[in-house]
Amino acid sequence: EQLSSLSGAMIGKGGHRHFMAKEIFEQPQVIGDTLSAMFNPTARTITLPDLPFDPATVPRITMIACGTASLAGMVGKYWLERHAGIPVDWDLASEFRYREPVMTEGGLAVFISQSGETADTLAALRYCKQQGQYCLGIVNAPESTIAREAHAVLPTLAGPEIGVASTKAFTTQLVVLACLTIALGKARGALDHETEARLSGALTEVPSRAAEVLNHDERIRAIAEETFVPARDVLYLGRGTSYPLALEGALKLKEISYIHAEGYAAGEMKHGPIALIDEHVPVVVIAPSDDLFEKTASNVQEVVARGGKAVVFADDAGVGRLKDLALETIALPAVDPFVAPILYAIPVQLLAYHTAVAKGTDVDQPRNLAKAVTVE
Amino acid sequence: EQLSSLSGAMIGKGGHRHFMAKEIFEQPQVIGDTLSAMFNPTARTITLPDLPFDPATVPRITMIACGTASLAGMVGKYWLERHAGIPVDWDLASEFRYREPVMTEGGLAVFISQSGETADTLAALRYCKQQGQYCLGIVNAPESTIAREAHAVLPTLAGPEIGVASTKAFTTQLVVLACLTIALGKARGALDHETEARLSGALTEVPSRAAEVLNHDERIRAIAEETFVPARDVLYLGRGTSYPLALEGALKLKEISYIHAEGYAAGEMKHGPIALIDEHVPVVVIAPSDDLFEKTASNVQEVVARGGKAVVFADDAGVGRLKDLALETIALPAVDPFVAPILYAIPVQLLAYHTAVAKGTDVDQPRNLAKAVTVE
Repeated sequence: EQLSSLSGAMIGKGGHRHFMAKEIFEQPQVIGDTLSAMFNPTARTITLPDLPFDPATVPRITMIACGTASLAGMVGKYWLERHAGIPVDWDLASEFRYREPVMTEGGLAVFISQSGETADTLAALRYCKQQGQYCLGIVNAPESTIAREAHAVLPTLAGPEIGVASTKAFTTQLVVLACLTIALGKARGALDHETEARLSGALTEVPSRAAEVLNHDERIRAIAEETFVPARDVLYLGRGTSYPLALEGALKLKEISYIHAEGYAAGEMKHGPIALIDEHVPVVVIAPSDDLFEKTASNVQEVVARGGKAVVFADDAGVGRLKDLALETIALPAVDPFVAPILYAIPVQLLAYHTAVAKGTDVDQPRNLAKAVTVE
Repeated sequence: EQLSSLSGAMIGKGGHRHFMAKEIFEQPQVIGDTLSAMFNPTARTITLPDLPFDPATVPRITMIACGTASLAGMVGKYWLERHAGIPVDWDLASEFRYREPVMTEGGLAVFISQSGETADTLAALRYCKQQGQYCLGIVNAPESTIAREAHAVLPTLAGPEIGVASTKAFTTQLVVLACLTIALGKARGALDHETEARLSGALTEVPSRAAEVLNHDERIRAIAEETFVPARDVLYLGRGTSYPLALEGALKLKEISYIHAEGYAAGEMKHGPIALIDEHVPVVVIAPSDDLFEKTASNVQEVVARGGKAVVFADDAGVGRLKDLALETIALPAVDPFVAPILYAIPVQLLAYHTAVAKGTDVDQPRNLAKAVTVE
């Protein structure tokens, strides 16, 4: 009877042992689906649906969410500031709604939520409407309360996400934010035609690059079993858009494996957390080739000099630079730094997944957690 | 010979075993000194030195620092937004300097650094000067590079801080930020006379309240030895201005005891970290009586319902409300919520200190850390 219920569950899981694995492996597909809704293949440009504000003149963006969605929003802040030239305030919904923030007249507020029912995020949306903000929802549930109450919605086409630990919802949220960045950058004249074409081109390559990243599954499983299962504590480091990825990697590991993982801006290590480093604490480093790579590489040296075991996610060039220092390196496809956060999300998901599976935790329904947090 | 070198060190440590203890116990004095430089006792008002910008019209503040100083800045953000009605952007210096931020013309940028030599903070200051910002330094070293290069300086009068883990520098940074908040709130008409008098009055009481808090030293030592020394992981929770305090408490414990502690906005618990909670993970809750107390109290219930051991810092009213749920409660003086972050900093310092002493770590010179981080 156990066997038959197992095989029943296997069908809904598309041959995977857990919904989380199925959802991780669906990412090339759902990233493509989400992108297709906003990408015009003939003109090779990003086209958003009509928005109830003028993207050329919106003075400021406020980005609000909880948990993993908030980390997608933090990547969005880096992107929008750099490529669209718009200042972005980022906050956790549970803090934002109570801190009586001063908001810029006519600003845009963006609310990110897989379920569209997150209680704190919804309360923040209602506050922002009162403050005269244009409210844009990025949700995976088009019939949800946040979708209904926002002035406009940009949907993630991730399909149902069953695993409590968010995976494909996160990467499709990133895709929507990347499209928003390009559209706003173009509307505001912050992106020249060449840069717009480069960023759009990099985005269209993400589905196939994501499929390549998934080929590292077995190798990441081996690293998870050897280095992460025995660990009590793990640190994740990154700079720039890799900083929210470090936070997300740590959150994922914490949620499903119950290992105490923490993400840090790599430049903050010397201001405290480096005291934790010894030979028992693996340090995961998110280091795509970008203008911050050398700074991150010097943080890897500091970690290793203090006996730390670095596990580095980088591309071939980065791996070449760090492989003599690191305990383990995983060589991901070389991509435009703009899209690196979408791709680097996948190996950190796999790392958390395989660690949890090997530890025997309830991967799809971790203790103490609910899928949609509809209470405060 | 060991005894004689010990007694030699004891003199510089004012009878304390470590510089850190001496510096924690100096706080009533140095908080008073720092306040006196900005408080006119006759008029009972805060008066700042002449500043090179018009506090009534400055459109926006950017608050930048590293490590513990950045957490003082995060408290400052909450204060300035609420009481002075000025929007504040907060960032880590190591992230800010590389993310090409869009800055508001004529804005004020505030740089907080004990040493005044923090490399990333100094680089951020230079960037902000190029961006046409008024640059204000909050430093403990008046001859430092940041003090020299800033347009104006508000000094912390903490005296020399020898312990690597910052204590009195942090609380005096908070005092300066509180004075800045009152002065700007008044200049902008955001504070009426009555509120200004209330906030100023609360500040002038801080030195004597801080001395009362220090009376809990023995009790906190007992809790540290019983509950924290055996812990591998600790979480710290708070909301509003208690959220940066939770981050600071965790940073302090991590730095000197090497226990993996992490601070979280209490409202974020349900979005992941609550999965870590079991009977082996003490959860420190910073819960002064303020308009967020009830929300935090419900987070304590969630923690306890999942087997977590809550250690609550609150006032008498809060302790009365939570003592049946919590493993331990510490009743601090009832104070105006405005000054709670300054006072609640002290018990979290003591908790980290006594845990580290009992574990036998090198409290004043923790492994891997330097006092002033003058490299990137």
